Amino acid sequence: MARYVYGFHQGNKDMKDLLGGKGANLAEMTNLGLPVPPGFTISTQACREYLAGGEPVGLRAEIDHHLATLETARGRRLGQADDPLLVSVRSGAKFSMPGMMDTILNIGLTDQAVLGLAEQSGSPRFAWDSYRRLLAMFGRTVLGVGEPSFDAALEAAKRAKGTSSDLDLDENDLRALVATYQRIVLERTGRPFPQDPREQLDLAIRAVFDSWNGPRARLYRRTERIPDDLGTAVSVVAMVFGNLGTDSGTGVAFTRDPGSGEPGVYGDYLPNAQGEDVVAGIRNPVPLAELERIDPASFTELREIMTRLEKHYRDLCDIEFTIEHGRLWILQTRVGKRTAAAAFRIAAMLAEGGVIDDDEALCRVSGDQLATLMFPRFDDTARPAPIATGVNAAPGAAVGEAVFDAAEAVRVAAEGRPVILVRRETNPDDLAGMLAARGILTSRGGRTSHAAVVARGLGRTCVCGAEEIEVDPAGRRLTTGRGVVVREGDILSIDGTIGAVYPGSVPLVPSPVVEYFEAGRPDHPRPGGDLVAAVDRLMRHADRSRRLRVRANADTGPDAARARRFGAAGIGLCRTEHMFLGDRRTLVEQMILAGTPAERTEALSRLLPPQREDFVEIFTAMDGLPVTVRLLDPPLHEFLPDLTELSVSIAAADAAGRPVDDADRERLAVLRSMHETNPMLGRRGVRLALTVPGLVELQARAIAEALVRCRRVGGDPRPEIMVPFISTATELDAIRDRVRGVLAEVGTESGLEIDLPIGTMIEVPRAALTADQIARRAEFFSFGTNDLTQLLWGFSRDDVEASLLPRYLDLGILAGSPFASVDRDGVGALMRTAVRAGRGARPDLGLGVCGEHGGDPDSVHFFAELGLDYVSCSPFRVPVARLEAGRAAVLGRSTVG
Amino acid sequence: MARYVYGFHQGNKDMKDLLGGKGANLAEMTNLGLPVPPGFTISTQACREYLAGGEPVGLRAEIDHHLATLETARGRRLGQADDPLLVSVRSGAKFSMPGMMDTILNIGLTDQAVLGLAEQSGSPRFAWDSYRRLLAMFGRTVLGVGEPSFDAALEAAKRAKGTSSDLDLDENDLRALVATYQRIVLERTGRPFPQDPREQLDLAIRAVFDSWNGPRARLYRRTERIPDDLGTAVSVVAMVFGNLGTDSGTGVAFTRDPGSGEPGVYGDYLPNAQGEDVVAGIRNPVPLAELERIDPASFTELREIMTRLEKHYRDLCDIEFTIEHGRLWILQTRVGKRTAAAAFRIAAMLAEGGVIDDDEALCRVSGDQLATLMFPRFDDTARPAPIATGVNAAPGAAVGEAVFDAAEAVRVAAEGRPVILVRRETNPDDLAGMLAARGILTSRGGRTSHAAVVARGLGRTCVCGAEEIEVDPAGRRLTTGRGVVVREGDILSIDGTIGAVYPGSVPLVPSPVVEYFEAGRPDHPRPGGDLVAAVDRLMRHADRSRRLRVRANADTGPDAARARRFGAAGIGLCRTEHMFLGDRRTLVEQMILAGTPAERTEALSRLLPPQREDFVEIFTAMDGLPVTVRLLDPPLHEFLPDLTELSVSIAAADAAGRPVDDADRERLAVLRSMHETNPMLGRRGVRLALTVPGLVELQARAIAEALVRCRRVGGDPRPEIMVPFISTATELDAIRDRVRGVLAEVGTESGLEIDLPIGTMIEVPRAALTADQIARRAEFFSFGTNDLTQLLWGFSRDDVEASLLPRYLDLGILAGSPFASVDRDGVGALMRTAVRAGRGARPDLGLGVCGEHGGDPDSVHFFAELGLDYVSCSPFRVPVARLEAGRAAVLGRSTVG
Repeated sequence: MARYVYGFHQGNKDMKDLLGGKGANLAEMTNLGLPVPPGFTISTQACREYLAGGEPVGLRAEIDHHLATLETARGRRLGQADDPLLVSVRSGAKFSMPGMMDTILNIGLTDQAVLGLAEQSGSPRFAWDSYRRLLAMFGRTVLGVGEPSFDAALEAAKRAKGTSSDLDLDENDLRALVATYQRIVLERTGRPFPQDPREQLDLAIRAVFDSWNGPRARLYRRTERIPDDLGTAVSVVAMVFGNLGTDSGTGVAFTRDPGSGEPGVYGDYLPNAQGEDVVAGIRNPVPLAELERIDPASFTELREIMTRLEKHYRDLCDIEFTIEHGRLWILQTRVGKRTAAAAFRIAAMLAEGGVIDDDEALCRVSGDQLATLMFPRFDDTARPAPIATGVNAAPGAAVGEAVFDAAEAVRVAAEGRPVILVRRETNPDDLAGMLAARGILTSRGGRTSHAAVVARGLGRTCVCGAEEIEVDPAGRRLTTGRGVVVREGDILSIDGTIGAVYPGSVPLVPSPVVEYFEAGRPDHPRPGGDLVAAVDRLMRHADRSRRLRVRANADTGPDAARARRFGAAGIGLCRTEHMFLGDRRTLVEQMILAGTPAERTEALSRLLPPQREDFVEIFTAMDGLPVTVRLLDPPLHEFLPDLTELSVSIAAADAAGRPVDDADRERLAVLRSMHETNPMLGRRGVRLALTVPGLVELQARAIAEALVRCRRVGGDPRPEIMVPFISTATELDAIRDRVRGVLAEVGTESGLEIDLPIGTMIEVPRAALTADQIARRAEFFSFGTNDLTQLLWGFSRDDVEASLLPRYLDLGILAGSPFASVDRDGVGALMRTAVRAGRGARPDLGLGVCGEHGGDPDSVHFFAELGLDYVSCSPFRVPVARLEAGRAAVLGRSTVG
Repeated sequence: MARYVYGFHQGNKDMKDLLGGKGANLAEMTNLGLPVPPGFTISTQACREYLAGGEPVGLRAEIDHHLATLETARGRRLGQADDPLLVSVRSGAKFSMPGMMDTILNIGLTDQAVLGLAEQSGSPRFAWDSYRRLLAMFGRTVLGVGEPSFDAALEAAKRAKGTSSDLDLDENDLRALVATYQRIVLERTGRPFPQDPREQLDLAIRAVFDSWNGPRARLYRRTERIPDDLGTAVSVVAMVFGNLGTDSGTGVAFTRDPGSGEPGVYGDYLPNAQGEDVVAGIRNPVPLAELERIDPASFTELREIMTRLEKHYRDLCDIEFTIEHGRLWILQTRVGKRTAAAAFRIAAMLAEGGVIDDDEALCRVSGDQLATLMFPRFDDTARPAPIATGVNAAPGAAVGEAVFDAAEAVRVAAEGRPVILVRRETNPDDLAGMLAARGILTSRGGRTSHAAVVARGLGRTCVCGAEEIEVDPAGRRLTTGRGVVVREGDILSIDGTIGAVYPGSVPLVPSPVVEYFEAGRPDHPRPGGDLVAAVDRLMRHADRSRRLRVRANADTGPDAARARRFGAAGIGLCRTEHMFLGDRRTLVEQMILAGTPAERTEALSRLLPPQREDFVEIFTAMDGLPVTVRLLDPPLHEFLPDLTELSVSIAAADAAGRPVDDADRERLAVLRSMHETNPMLGRRGVRLALTVPGLVELQARAIAEALVRCRRVGGDPRPEIMVPFISTATELDAIRDRVRGVLAEVGTESGLEIDLPIGTMIEVPRAALTADQIARRAEFFSFGTNDLTQLLWGFSRDDVEASLLPRYLDLGILAGSPFASVDRDGVGALMRTAVRAGRGARPDLGLGVCGEHGGDPDSVHFFAELGLDYVSCSPFRVPVARLEAGRAAVLGRSTVG
């Protein structure tokens, strides 16, 4: 028989797959001898079986057994009328999903037991408050009674009492509220609130299981790329109470500052409260350091436990605790979330202190974190006076339109306008809006409120608990303490690093990390605590470790130079489109519209000198490093005006009797003849090179002549020619003949031997499928994973990314965009086949990637696994790819997890 | 050492790979003891090596040896001054490529030898004429001296003499012409005509090798799907002369009428001429039967040889012969080309006579031939009087614009207008025009002229040798004997079955073969010679033999009924697009533009009844057979007006101050928001079903309710639901849930159990790559090879078929359109993977094809090889697919070749 339930003494921190993070850590702390309330954990296995086919056989008997053990330990039975054992039922999956699933406290209270609890605790007010809380949580979570019922009743009671604080409600008020809540349950569900404590427990466990598949949880998992089939564990824990009076309370402690990584006493404490009050951000807690004054004994004990846990976990720990009549209880710990800066600083500090080695330090940070550190921040010299300040909950600088609900945030962002989402406080229903926003501003809640935790997880800038702001969602505006009004659509700037809110758009300056990359590596590493020094330490280790080279996508000399400063080992994709734009557009138009070969030749010959100069600049910036030049790719009509626009303007002019330029009519005729229904699948890439007379010769000559120029001044130019959009090997034969012809001509003219690698993009699925044939003609492959994804999925990115993909994410059809992270089952499988076939036909075949996936952390790991030689990405992503390539190598060596 | 050269006694008819068709058959006939002039054949192996890297080592020595043997046999040396041995050098590949490669006659003549030949033959005129011919052929073919040089000189000589016939030129005229020709050679090549006979021979052999890669030969091979890497053999044959006087001549004999298949004496004879005169169609020959009167002995001997060859080859033979001073020489034989009707009749007759079995008979015909028999013919009751008559060279009825050169034919056909190409005579340079034309009309040449042979090969209708017509290419018109003038662009109708030319457009009636299919099988098979009986015999054998089922693509009741008469085993693709068109367009527009859910529901509910009726009709027509219904596939904007057109009309109205309908502005706004850059890759297929509210429910309900209606009246409806454009298995999960929901509802409403197969198109490459995952959710796969080809190649058919593909064929990048015959290396390889993975995941997975390739003979063979269950094609192609499926089964059993 499978074992579904584990007592806390039966597990440890490495059993997260089975016990979830919360259950595993409760077990670990129990075994460390810390003051953890007794309890047991129902495994994720039970959840998976329950979700697949209903309650597993034997689960009930195991719960019976563990509940009996718990009752024996606490000396009373669940819901016992005169002295009830109360328990909490807490969800806890392998990966933290804050606020996504449900917790129910005070299970075991009934109409009888509440009287017993009043008697035993000596506080009837406490007992009725606890019962009220159970009814609300159970009603919402287990019985599906939606808001505003319970909250409205609570607000009404407070209004009647003329107060805004729960604490002002007395025993009678709360007893009346319990009656109201029970009536709501009966009305809304048709059944009274269950008076059998064990039925309460069973229903609560099921509700937690079911919450795994709730829409919020699913959305969160998709965002965080957590698999859907893990399930959650459920911990049943004896209740301890922080709301038994002023010698009680509850709080959250961090062993380091999760914003900076600095060691110290960080966290919040809320006297005379339950944990839910802290997490919900409804009441504002005091800084944890205050506890030393309020309850010095508990504070000292907590400090000792904090030190012990950080040493034990060798990382920042995030600890939830409750003090019940002066006795400290630890309810939860986990390796704490942190800002990107803190992640780098902690990893580097621990490595410097010898607590972890550099491999492990590297695995503690991520490319996504590095990317957030490279965001710009506000220019200090241009900051206006803040209109409000709050908690610096998630760092960064964000500018956008103030928007007052999640739906509007999604709508405005979909139009491409940046958004700051402003709420009194957030809850899980706001998730879509938080995803869509650049920044989040709330007027309530601290560093551990929903808004703060989720914003840090999503990498969104957040200022929370800006109490002087009055948020008016209905009126769609906020008013500051000094009477400044910000209406929906007005621009706000928020600084999550210091917790400030500014009117209008504050100018941005680059991040110090970017300045570090721009400057090259610092000569004198600064002390371990410094962010730049931490980044430097981990980047050096990544560079030492990685096998995958990182090149950049760069099209101009300045781009190439920047990419080189950022550590690029060459250019993996030099697009040539821009060489046909700007002041050359007239010549390009002349080339396209040419009536005679002579006109065309004239246009082409005038395009040659400036294009040669472009290449000289790029080769010079990348002297000694490879520069992969892609032949012209986009359809030619992209160099002409838009067909519909031109049609409309000519039709309007004709209708109004205005004269129309003959050249415009000619353009229209040519555009009509060139019109393609699906330009993505039309005359582009190699098809242009093969069918537009003189085009490939122009490009090959510009490259070859630039190479000659660079060599003549002692340079070491290393261009490679890359042919885009190959579907069949014979295309490559034809184009190679023509390119080599030009190279030979320029060779003869210059007296230099010109030989350079000719390779191809692998971006059309058929090319990947026939990679063996192609590899016999190509010296290198560069996977164009954007087009490969488009064609393999039949997804035009322009058309579906905004309209279809969000719907597919909603429907659970996709877990993420295949344009963001490479689709391993489809695109990845095809790449694997192509790599094998290509190397089979040509063992020294060069292999790279030049789609946007080249800068995506998850994809970089896949490309490293595939054994590619390099990835190429935008210059700004080069450090990210270097870091992730290092992590991939370290993880591949399995020195860590 | 490889052996490159074979004497005629060293080969046989089965050595075509090595000796080419001509060489193998010359060897076979030599061994049969027939009067074949002695000679030897240089193998295709020598050609391949020559083309790859120059003349193979050892080839020269082998030629020396065989030439010496030939000289010994004939008792004189090549080009011997007093009595020269002359030889012809003839190309001959494995597959017949009439007129595509070069032949040079009279090799061995020099300024000296011509005198010896004059002496020996007793005819100086003959000797000088032979030398003239050598100079012209050698000059053109070996030395690359282009026309009009030699022909112009000949025409000038005839003009000077006041004659139009070569025969009127005497010895002196011809001697002068030789001098002129030699001057032309010197002027045009800078070198005199070679006087070393062996040099002539070597150069001629190389020229034949080189001609394999000539542009005409390449184009022909692409058209006929002959591989480019076979190479040609070269036969060197002792010359015999048909132009030695009235007791000499040359001709072509067929053992049966290649037009009808009827046994008898068919062919042409041209007294006092060389073979080239017949093939070129320059002079008009007499019917072969005339030879009985002209030279009874040779005629009798020829008849005996014809009988013997047909018996030996068990098929229609096409024989070239020459009579030299009353002695018969056989120069060539091969299994003769024939019309489609003749192919069926011959195969059936030979099978009926027990000469071959039904398997072999089936392999002697093809689906392409059957397709040509299904073309319509002219309505006898509506035929006007012909304006001319000629030779019925290639059967069929063609109507089109008269066009007088190949380039114009290509241009007009590219505009989608049908063309009749009118020429005095055709030559290989006309090939592109002949391909583009529906029919070909010439004023010169017989059944064996270039026009006739090529037209039959290409399946084009042809009337040739319509001598009463005067063709004026410069004036772009023809004039008939009775003075009727037809100008370029005028419509002509030509009947290639009887050889008649009509003015204007003659109405067409269906072919008897189509009538046979329409009627079902005939109750009383007619005698073996009858075409319909022959088709019936071979179709029955195909149906008996095949494993592959053939379904039809049909969208309406009448189409379904016709498909069933044509032998379809169900519908493999029932498109539902038309159910949203016609008078339902308003409702569809209402559905798309709906402002409220109620408006949308209203539109959908009004679309339901007519769609249910559509399905009732189709299920009734296919009662008892499967009907695979594809859910709506095209993007919704296809149901609205065109964006550019509407923009232009509104802009023009606005500019002119005309009022614009508000509904049009609304349409424009919606169209703009729905606009897709690449609709092929946008919101279509399953993406519509998943995102347009109510759409899939409407379709599923219409199908289910139609099923209920049919069952209620005792029918056996067998619908299957097919989901288009799946990229990932989760799409199928979502859509199956929704479809099953509707089926369950209709089941409850009707009290019937409704269960029907739900499967998917495999048309997006990713679906094929993840076929195992998809097969777990799909009861069948139907490969949509059109879209699969588009996406795998990155080819939008709409955009590239007219513009890019022809250029790619020209450049030799493609051998044929991948939309015509399935691309085995790409699409085929992916299908193979998907079939294996799909069957691995679900062993009873149904597998079919519903792209246009389902009716393409070559593709049908591939699908049979893959082990698919069925192909689906247009009703008219169903018999073709049945026949080819039978042939594939027979060939797969290897009972034949």
